[in-house]
Amino acid sequence: MSGRYALGIDFGTESGRAVLVDCSDGSEVAASVYPYANGVLDERLPDSDVELEPEWALQDPADYVRTLQHAVPEVLAGVRPEEVVGVGIDFTSCTMLPTTADGTPLCELPDLRLRPHAWVKLWKHHAAQPEADEVNAVARSRGEPWLSRYGGKISSEWFFPKALQILHEDPEVYARAGRLIEAADWIVWQLTGVETRNTTTAGHKAIWSKADGFPSRDYFAALDPRFADVVDEKMSRRIDAIGGRAGGIGERAAAWTGLLPGTPVAVANVDAHVSAPAVGCIAPGELVVIMGTSNCHILLGDRLASVEGMCGVVEDGVVPGLFGYEAGQSAVGDIFAWFVENAVPPQIYELAQERGVNVHHLLEEQAAALAVGESGLLALDWWNGNRSVLVDADLAGLVVGLSLSTRPHEVYRALLEATAFGTRVIVDAFERGGVPVDRIVACGGLPHRNRLLMQTYADVLGRPIDVSASQNAPARGAAMFGAVVGGSYGSIVEASERMAAPVAETYVPDDRSRHGYDTLYAEYVRLHDLFGRGGDDVMKTLKRVRDETKRAAAGNAPQR
Amino acid sequence: MSGRYALGIDFGTESGRAVLVDCSDGSEVAASVYPYANGVLDERLPDSDVELEPEWALQDPADYVRTLQHAVPEVLAGVRPEEVVGVGIDFTSCTMLPTTADGTPLCELPDLRLRPHAWVKLWKHHAAQPEADEVNAVARSRGEPWLSRYGGKISSEWFFPKALQILHEDPEVYARAGRLIEAADWIVWQLTGVETRNTTTAGHKAIWSKADGFPSRDYFAALDPRFADVVDEKMSRRIDAIGGRAGGIGERAAAWTGLLPGTPVAVANVDAHVSAPAVGCIAPGELVVIMGTSNCHILLGDRLASVEGMCGVVEDGVVPGLFGYEAGQSAVGDIFAWFVENAVPPQIYELAQERGVNVHHLLEEQAAALAVGESGLLALDWWNGNRSVLVDADLAGLVVGLSLSTRPHEVYRALLEATAFGTRVIVDAFERGGVPVDRIVACGGLPHRNRLLMQTYADVLGRPIDVSASQNAPARGAAMFGAVVGGSYGSIVEASERMAAPVAETYVPDDRSRHGYDTLYAEYVRLHDLFGRGGDDVMKTLKRVRDETKRAAAGNAPQR
Repeated sequence: MSGRYALGIDFGTESGRAVLVDCSDGSEVAASVYPYANGVLDERLPDSDVELEPEWALQDPADYVRTLQHAVPEVLAGVRPEEVVGVGIDFTSCTMLPTTADGTPLCELPDLRLRPHAWVKLWKHHAAQPEADEVNAVARSRGEPWLSRYGGKISSEWFFPKALQILHEDPEVYARAGRLIEAADWIVWQLTGVETRNTTTAGHKAIWSKADGFPSRDYFAALDPRFADVVDEKMSRRIDAIGGRAGGIGERAAAWTGLLPGTPVAVANVDAHVSAPAVGCIAPGELVVIMGTSNCHILLGDRLASVEGMCGVVEDGVVPGLFGYEAGQSAVGDIFAWFVENAVPPQIYELAQERGVNVHHLLEEQAAALAVGESGLLALDWWNGNRSVLVDADLAGLVVGLSLSTRPHEVYRALLEATAFGTRVIVDAFERGGVPVDRIVACGGLPHRNRLLMQTYADVLGRPIDVSASQNAPARGAAMFGAVVGGSYGSIVEASERMAAPVAETYVPDDRSRHGYDTLYAEYVRLHDLFGRGGDDVMKTLKRVRDETKRAAAGNAPQR
Repeated sequence: MSGRYALGIDFGTESGRAVLVDCSDGSEVAASVYPYANGVLDERLPDSDVELEPEWALQDPADYVRTLQHAVPEVLAGVRPEEVVGVGIDFTSCTMLPTTADGTPLCELPDLRLRPHAWVKLWKHHAAQPEADEVNAVARSRGEPWLSRYGGKISSEWFFPKALQILHEDPEVYARAGRLIEAADWIVWQLTGVETRNTTTAGHKAIWSKADGFPSRDYFAALDPRFADVVDEKMSRRIDAIGGRAGGIGERAAAWTGLLPGTPVAVANVDAHVSAPAVGCIAPGELVVIMGTSNCHILLGDRLASVEGMCGVVEDGVVPGLFGYEAGQSAVGDIFAWFVENAVPPQIYELAQERGVNVHHLLEEQAAALAVGESGLLALDWWNGNRSVLVDADLAGLVVGLSLSTRPHEVYRALLEATAFGTRVIVDAFERGGVPVDRIVACGGLPHRNRLLMQTYADVLGRPIDVSASQNAPARGAAMFGAVVGGSYGSIVEASERMAAPVAETYVPDDRSRHGYDTLYAEYVRLHDLFGRGGDDVMKTLKRVRDETKRAAAGNAPQR
């Protein structure tokens, strides 16, 4: 056939991105971004007065369709549609929604439009912590064997806590949901007309494994009798292997996108997971860190091991024949953005403007002039809870060492360092659990924007960090899966060998800084354990008081 | 005689202030402020490249003389000098300097001008912590009986740690010092030509008591053999009671000020201590809180008790016949100023400008709309260490509970609350130690500028707070002592009964807020004890690493 290109579509937190990739060498031919019109819904539902409680984070599924309608036609502008051999998509996860049996999102039904639980729950929706606590407590008391695959804890971000929250707080929406589905699988359904469910999100987020399937009916019944048949009533036991074909582009999707009907579409996948082959991580011991608003860590191993606080391990979950381990930090770039938006005074903005640089860049430059430890500051990077290794959304950020001489760039540096310490905790946990880390590749938006950040990671970890040249790693990885289902390659490993992005730059640890960071890291780990492992529960108490206060102020009971 | 006025001169941290007071009713007739030309020296010596190490804070004694030359003539402009019956001064303390035997500051000798130890050590000079540790360790090992009068710990801010630091780090300056003297006594010396030493600073800051005098020669010798005779070589055993006359205005001071030669000058006193009679606190159980850059607490009691972490207790130290207890918080307004200067983003400044209010005022308004606990934040108010009850300058500030939804006014409120919790710790310690607190009067600059702050103090303490009408309480109190030495009244108690400032407003605790704060206070106390009493030494480790790093960066050893 005449095709030369594969299309990857990456559905992120704030926008969707289409990238057209040359199948022969992986070069990125065209890219287009669609910023979601409704973004992240964390204060109220669109065009309404319906306010959301703390910790909520929703999305509008119409934004995903608009990505297909706007971004895809733009990247196809210079090519003939028959030149596209296949399409792959990747998505944030666990991002899930309730739909009717035919896939219509419940939030698009007029009578459910003002019901928060009818909308998409974004990965960073953290309001299902009580349900996550229940999921974990019941699993522990029943001795569920699958719990150890998830570092001993299921996160509030994942599928069943979110599903259970719908049941608890809005049973009618739960009842009306013919399907509960990952947004990744839902968008493939919209593209092809075929409902599939992929191994990666099922394995990493919905407690499924190739060997054992889902947890038992008894387990779900123990959570809530009405939840006993959630898999058979709202989901499916048929799980499709990544790397396979979900279907072909349907007529409606062809009209949206300009793709030819029948163009092969790959089974859905996750942004972090497709990044591994995109940057050439296809062998055991290779760790890719996707650095953006949050950090996601994907490590390949050749055997099943039990690692504290990892998000999960899935056989064939990243690359066939290997075990894909996932860990994460729930806020990284988000913390730096919060800082610049909320805690940087006018004189820094003015200086940045005079110098013609952005504020992040100026702070980075000022912070780079500091020696390790010079600020006297240390932070815990839990502005959005802790995903790995503590798996606890109720933790919060902390800064210690503040004095009257503390300056903004010093706090900024302490925040960069805190996220690096958080990554080191994860790497240490992998190695302690028996999964070696031999090479680290960073990709995502942050590594290209902040040299100090990358040098700090190298110094704190005491290892070289390769930065991938691609700034569109997820979309490129998705496109590789498109190339595979389009027949250009026999497997994702073969595709990666030809199409992976090269290394742009390697950051090498500085011996002196590394030594200084060892001291600070020891302090970080002690505070991490003190506040994160139950030694001092101040963060949880403050959050509880805050939530009670907000509810009392709103004059109503929790939404249940 | 024809006199009707008394003059009070208040020497503060950033400026000196003269206030002319009507002896009949205490009304303030004229006031003038002289902002110190050299302010607080914490980066380098004036007109030099001599950099100061972390924790240093010096002043220029010429600024005190310039206060006499500028502020005093201004307030005398509308009166005849013979109408001034007497002069009183008050000063920050312990603020001390080395001079020659005739009172010339060593920093004014050309060959010592570039030596940091030749300058005035301001109260908030915190670099003598190693010496304070020694002073305490030796006292404990010898079982010195006076230690319990100071809450079991001598602060690095006080006289002997500062004197010992001079000896340790610049023995030549120590040797050249004919006198080591409180700036309060030094300025009275400049006014009168007579060297006196007052009971208040001797008792509160230099380990002197009416009953026992100074610590023994053996004790000082145990600190350092060269320090054995510090009292007899550099100080004086003659201590003059407050309320007495130091001397009359000399010819030189008359030329500076426009006062008549011979006008009576009171024995020197301390800003916080003169504030008690200035606001009418003259009976046991009355607590005055002087709220400004820092908080100082002066409580009157009718007997000697041992209170944890109080700065000291001195018989006749505030009012004859009573015991004056002192406690303090080393940064309060300073923290709010730091926050506004370093951590408030442009959009808040812009909104304040649009609304025509200052940034503090806008933040106060936004923060006042929050309910107790709504921010989910808690802070430890140790931006400048902790004076009471922990007496530890090496502690640092902490904020916990930060999240991506945290906004500047929420942090601002958490900082206000932290200082209120700090005051409650002190009040609780007084009562636990057996010194009741029956009434609280606030004065100083802050209570008039921030209503939310005062309501928060009332709510956190669960007690009404009277705010004194006077915004010049220290200068008014100093003037009262001038009225006493001028013969207008027989004692400071009589003067206070006629001249004290009225109560402008009383803040009454709100029951619901008070209950909410009880929960947060319990968390504050736990963190206070954890980080302040040795449970977790992270603050000290960070400070040690910071200081080592700065020294290594400067490429030189400590100044010893």
